[in-house]
Amino acid sequence: MSILFEPIGVIHTSFATLDQVPSQGTLAPDSRGAVEVFPGFEEGLKSVETFTHIILLYHFDRAWETKLTLLSSQDKLPRGVFASRHPCRPNGIGFTVARLLERVGNRLEVSGVDILDGTPLLDIKPYMRRFDCFPDAGEGWAAR
Amino acid sequence: MSILFEPIGVIHTSFATLDQVPSQGTLAPDSRGAVEVFPGFEEGLKSVETFTHIILLYHFDRAWETKLTLLSSQDKLPRGVFASRHPCRPNGIGFTVARLLERVGNRLEVSGVDILDGTPLLDIKPYMRRFDCFPDAGEGWAAR
Repeated sequence: MSILFEPIGVIHTSFATLDQVPSQGTLAPDSRGAVEVFPGFEEGLKSVETFTHIILLYHFDRAWETKLTLLSSQDKLPRGVFASRHPCRPNGIGFTVARLLERVGNRLEVSGVDILDGTPLLDIKPYMRRFDCFPDAGEGWAAR
Repeated sequence: MSILFEPIGVIHTSFATLDQVPSQGTLAPDSRGAVEVFPGFEEGLKSVETFTHIILLYHFDRAWETKLTLLSSQDKLPRGVFASRHPCRPNGIGFTVARLLERVGNRLEVSGVDILDGTPLLDIKPYMRRFDCFPDAGEGWAAR
């Protein structure tokens, strides 16, 4: 049973190649980007500018080979892809919480992006502290 | 340009109909569920049990009509769907951070779910406090 999605926009960043992309947006809080929502979806942005942070869901569209196990760059031990944020996923959906700086029409200026330039946008959701922030969450195998 | 995904599993909960589903998992921390990953993807779960919280991405597969604007149940004002967590999205991707209670083989016991029984699972990512928790984030129009 296949599930079909269509991009609702495109994400513009300064990262043209994979080796330029920070491994997490939080690690590059100053990295700027722009989320362009296609005009037909602009109506859906109403009130989004009231939020300080937004969840971006997007498509890892650049030739990632799917792997179920991979070696962590941190400790070189094998981990499952579902215990990892690596893009080599069976369904290549990327997830980033970005800071929303400004909305101008169908364009959202953001920072804290770890996303390749030209990445197809699938969804935007408001980040809401009371639903999405778990300060007591552990860091699993990736704890430092 | 269509993007094609295939479910990697299915989410089991006690919510058989939409009116039973809590509007957010955080609002129903005791609501239990089980995430069944299809056997072909079980290898990808290696080490996931080291995390206390996981991000579930799934498909809103139950007949949601897409709307770009909707009336908030909170204040009855019109908001864009991208300023809302409502399922009536152009690309019906659901997002929940669930507490991971136990892993038994290809099955993850979780709590804090706001998901219909039988929902197709698209991805699992580890929730990592240092990447995903923004305690200073605002609540936008939904602030109380």
